[in-house]
Amino acid sequence: MEDIKKVLRKFAEERDWDRYHNPKNLVMALSGEIGELTELFQWLNEDESKVENLSIKNLERVKEEVADIFLYLIRLSDKLNIDLIEVAKKKIDINETKYPVELSKNNAIKYNRRDE
Amino acid sequence: MEDIKKVLRKFAEERDWDRYHNPKNLVMALSGEIGELTELFQWLNEDESKVENLSIKNLERVKEEVADIFLYLIRLSDKLNIDLIEVAKKKIDINETKYPVELSKNNAIKYNRRDE
Amino acid sequence: MEDIKKVLRKFAEERDWDRYHNPKNLVMALSGEIGELTELFQWLNEDESKVENLSIKNLERVKEEVADIFLYLIRLSDKLNIDLIEVAKKKIDINETKYPVELSKNNAIKYNRRDE
Amino acid sequence: MEDIKKVLRKFAEERDWDRYHNPKNLVMALSGEIGELTELFQWLNEDESKVENLSIKNLERVKEEVADIFLYLIRLSDKLNIDLIEVAKKKIDINETKYPVELSKNNAIKYNRRDE
Repeated sequence: MEDIKKVLRKFAEERDWDRYHNPKNLVMALSGEIGELTELFQWLNEDESKVENLSIKNLERVKEEVADIFLYLIRLSDKLNIDLIEVAKKKIDINETKYPVELSKNNAIKYNRRDE
Repeated sequence: MEDIKKVLRKFAEERDWDRYHNPKNLVMALSGEIGELTELFQWLNEDESKVENLSIKNLERVKEEVADIFLYLIRLSDKLNIDLIEVAKKKIDINETKYPVELSKNNAIKYNRRDE
Repeated sequence: MEDIKKVLRKFAEERDWDRYHNPKNLVMALSGEIGELTELFQWLNEDESKVENLSIKNLERVKEEVADIFLYLIRLSDKLNIDLIEVAKKKIDINETKYPVELSKNNAIKYNRRDE
Repeated sequence: MEDIKKVLRKFAEERDWDRYHNPKNLVMALSGEIGELTELFQWLNEDESKVENLSIKNLERVKEEVADIFLYLIRLSDKLNIDLIEVAKKKIDINETKYPVELSKNNAIKYNRRDE
């Protein structure tokens, strides 16, 4: 991931694209890519969306969109000095506290809405 | 990243959330998290969005949303048997071909629209 | 809709929010609201998402998010001098040509991919 | 808007697309269209995003995406028995209370965060 970060930096610098890569714009780019991924799944039902039921062609498209999302996420994190692995681990700890096993079983609704 | 993938698997299984985690639903969850990140940047201008200009409080929120996006991206990739690092590298190669340095300089518009 | 447009204009002006309301920012605001709507549906299956199966509480939340999306769409269109009804009608005509009944039956994939 | 709703109903029925049009799927379709709109604005700065600075070609694309969003929003509302005008008016009233002029001046952050 560290390597990819550096490759993306060089990629943007060589093309003079760095000046477009402020966090606001990168968040929008990330959002646009998620939109493209969403389009691939919007008319599939939940079963059809499973990897064993996707066509090879569709899975290829999905992989490309997932890659785009990952690349922009790395680029955004680079610009914000965020260590993705570090914040992910921290968030997992928060989630462990927020969604205790016993209260969360069979229940995907947000923990802070569990009394509703 | 491999570790995080396994922790997330266990996290979902312990809570019986695995049955909600089909790719279609996970794409929506990813999309929802991007929406939360977008809200943090929507009224900031490009300069204000830079890390040196974000308040500590805002940066904390940004980190949490970035983490959520990363976690759902790992989870989705796990369900689709996608190796994030592998597809990212492949996409970088595609981008190198699609956006050659000379044609792309100063030009952030999509390469396939460069004649317009 | 014309009335709502004017009320939103006055609302923004009275709060000095007009300077935040450039199209780029409004697109992000729209995107953030869609994210909130998405979160309400992400763990529901297709049947559960139908109006007759939504809880009253959930439907209330859905209505509020749908309203937010509509309000930002009107505001954005106002800023871009877009007549929503006019462009909608035009797009329907385009869609009639793009997706002829005979070729589109039972087939939700994009018309330009029908040969794949 | 009532007319458009009916045209969209007929459009979907004639193509047997109605069975794809449950609220969950329509929310995803809406989200995908927002993604396409976002892509048109992601590398523009706030000034460039203003209607007087958009190229004719770009404005045409923007209109088409705005139309797509509006059409899916009408279709979704139809499926959820939501009256767009009614919920919009209701939401405006809520916003008037939530963001009083005096407290909101010069301040685009969410009212419930104004003490932070």
